[in-house]
Amino acid sequence: MLPNGFRVGGICSGIAKKNEKKDLALFVSDSPASAAGIFTKNVVKAAPVLIDIERLKKGDKFFGIIANSGCANACTGIEGEEDAKNMCLIVEKSFNFDRGSVLCASTGVIGQHLNISRGKLERSIDLLKSSIGISVESENDAVLAIMTTDTFVKKTDKKIKFENGEVKIWGCIKGAGMIHPNMCGLSTNLHATMLSFILTDAEIESETLQKVLENSSEKSFNCVSVDGDTSTNDTVIVLANGQSGTGKLSGSDLEKFEKVFDELALELAQSVAKDGEGATKFIEIEVRNTKTEIDAKLIASTIATSPLFKTAMFGADANWGRILAAAGRSGVMFNLSKVDIYIGGVQTFKNGKVLDFSEAEARKSLLKKEVKIVIDFKAGKENSKYYTCDFSYDYVKINGSYRS
Amino acid sequence: MLPNGFRVGGICSGIAKKNEKKDLALFVSDSPASAAGIFTKNVVKAAPVLIDIERLKKGDKFFGIIANSGCANACTGIEGEEDAKNMCLIVEKSFNFDRGSVLCASTGVIGQHLNISRGKLERSIDLLKSSIGISVESENDAVLAIMTTDTFVKKTDKKIKFENGEVKIWGCIKGAGMIHPNMCGLSTNLHATMLSFILTDAEIESETLQKVLENSSEKSFNCVSVDGDTSTNDTVIVLANGQSGTGKLSGSDLEKFEKVFDELALELAQSVAKDGEGATKFIEIEVRNTKTEIDAKLIASTIATSPLFKTAMFGADANWGRILAAAGRSGVMFNLSKVDIYIGGVQTFKNGKVLDFSEAEARKSLLKKEVKIVIDFKAGKENSKYYTCDFSYDYVKINGSYRS
Repeated sequence: MLPNGFRVGGICSGIAKKNEKKDLALFVSDSPASAAGIFTKNVVKAAPVLIDIERLKKGDKFFGIIANSGCANACTGIEGEEDAKNMCLIVEKSFNFDRGSVLCASTGVIGQHLNISRGKLERSIDLLKSSIGISVESENDAVLAIMTTDTFVKKTDKKIKFENGEVKIWGCIKGAGMIHPNMCGLSTNLHATMLSFILTDAEIESETLQKVLENSSEKSFNCVSVDGDTSTNDTVIVLANGQSGTGKLSGSDLEKFEKVFDELALELAQSVAKDGEGATKFIEIEVRNTKTEIDAKLIASTIATSPLFKTAMFGADANWGRILAAAGRSGVMFNLSKVDIYIGGVQTFKNGKVLDFSEAEARKSLLKKEVKIVIDFKAGKENSKYYTCDFSYDYVKINGSYRS
Repeated sequence: MLPNGFRVGGICSGIAKKNEKKDLALFVSDSPASAAGIFTKNVVKAAPVLIDIERLKKGDKFFGIIANSGCANACTGIEGEEDAKNMCLIVEKSFNFDRGSVLCASTGVIGQHLNISRGKLERSIDLLKSSIGISVESENDAVLAIMTTDTFVKKTDKKIKFENGEVKIWGCIKGAGMIHPNMCGLSTNLHATMLSFILTDAEIESETLQKVLENSSEKSFNCVSVDGDTSTNDTVIVLANGQSGTGKLSGSDLEKFEKVFDELALELAQSVAKDGEGATKFIEIEVRNTKTEIDAKLIASTIATSPLFKTAMFGADANWGRILAAAGRSGVMFNLSKVDIYIGGVQTFKNGKVLDFSEAEARKSLLKKEVKIVIDFKAGKENSKYYTCDFSYDYVKINGSYRS
């Protein structure tokens, strides 16, 4: 269920996809909203990413997000930036929003230009304007319009009860390939194609919202990998329009909001790994008891991106040696004689030695849709979780001919 | 053709492979040889790697290398180290070589122990001793006995003419998966399963030989990737027995030797990418004109390990956007508006803009067995080349069930 004051929708415009599928989505608030965003750290940033960073740095109040799928509008030069600005401008004009108050996002093939002939974008926005709404159908249309190789609609919502009312948060996400988000805020050097839009009727300042998003992403969006390839377009935008009527969030109320926001972000991020290109199973990698959190995350992400580990998971092969080999090349130093490994609840390795475990039992657990891998270093107190999927024939099939 | 004084061979011993294929190789010199070695930097190092590092640090003269395939003897604890030492000891006893003068190497499944029952290793070494020789058949037997998923014998030799005679260099290599060598010498922190053994009758001190090998590996062994997974066992060992009779190499003679050694190392390294698991084509990635050599190598290796780039290559899809996206996530900063990209001789991108190139022509070049990718940053004068292969259905097939 959408938060108060938001309307969303999605249509087939033909500006980015050729196959008559939905390719243009709109998310609008009927009152000005605070905004926060995190973007890809890839040196090669798509036009919409550059535009959004500029707008979020300047502005404080925003009314919406226009997003397309099928064309990434990346590596498209000045012309691409003009196209992205135009998408925003036409929405602003149509709804009579302030100039610079609409954000944008794109996903799809790199290097192609949006197919915008005279008047085509205007007609598309008109159509979008008349079709947006607050129904579940509108939600689905919006999410469908940002999907590329995704196989299902990924969205979720939460409610938070306060003494004087209720705050709603709604989020959607797309992403199946070129997924290894490495995003940060506006102050530093930025890098993903994961697109996620989160809408809430909480009242919260942009600066606070940005902190909530950045903290949250380190345990959600930035902890998911399908193929290790960080996109030129990764974008997460949050809009908060304050229409819940519960007043500005602070203190313990803000903490309560943050907790639920974190849950929503994690759910969205996990859904991307579940829908990874060609994925047959979802894999959670938990690294336990390292000296630093960075160590834990580095080891977890190295395992999550190892083609040998991921193909073994596809084959339901409890090849714990590949887990160790990946950890060993992560750049983190550790004492092998302290390491324990669990594959789907079956311990295969203890204190640096292989156990006489049941291959049949391990295989059984690896044939499930969700698999958990634990590697314990017993070297400190820091932990990290990372989410990924297996590497199948279908990944090769999908990506051997993505542009054709 | 083997250098003077060396004999090699390979047999089926059953200590490491179950399928009656050759699994035990021996390389011996009939006079003491200088030795050099580089080994995996993976924190998790196989038993033979640990033994070799210790021996090369202590000793100065070596007589041979005993190597097996099928079992990596990695993550096998003290017992594994005893097995590795025993392999060496039995060779030393059998040939009456000094204790500690034989090196060892293993490749195969991690975590399994060598299948050595009482007397089995002794009988195998007896058999090996009687079968080693200098013929092409002996060379082939030795290489076959170190192969795992390799599909062809990879060996080469060179001759260098000097005023007072001729020096021969012979090298072999195995490796098809878990290939992303990151090796270094003995003085620093070490990490690969690429095995390569190089034999020469040049007269050259161990210290000099080590330098020649380390310098060479930065443009050969450490510039090849099949899947980005650095093994626990990567090993390159060079033995130089001085039997050419041309005297100790120095000055311009040493330079001449180095040049030919580099050519041989590069040829061996490239052959691994050509035989990459499931590979349908060999890919050379050349990064031109970066500010530093490290920049060039980092960009080249990021492209070479990108699953999206490698699946596009499998599909003969000139998806230059994926090349740029990988470069952009490499960690190197660059100015996109200066970048040029060539795919198989077809320029697709110039000064940050896509060209109106012929997709048909690009596809034609990508259907060849050997493909060259060039990306020019026009930011400096440093260059780097990296060698890899495409990512096919067969890679997934081979690695979905490697242990079974």
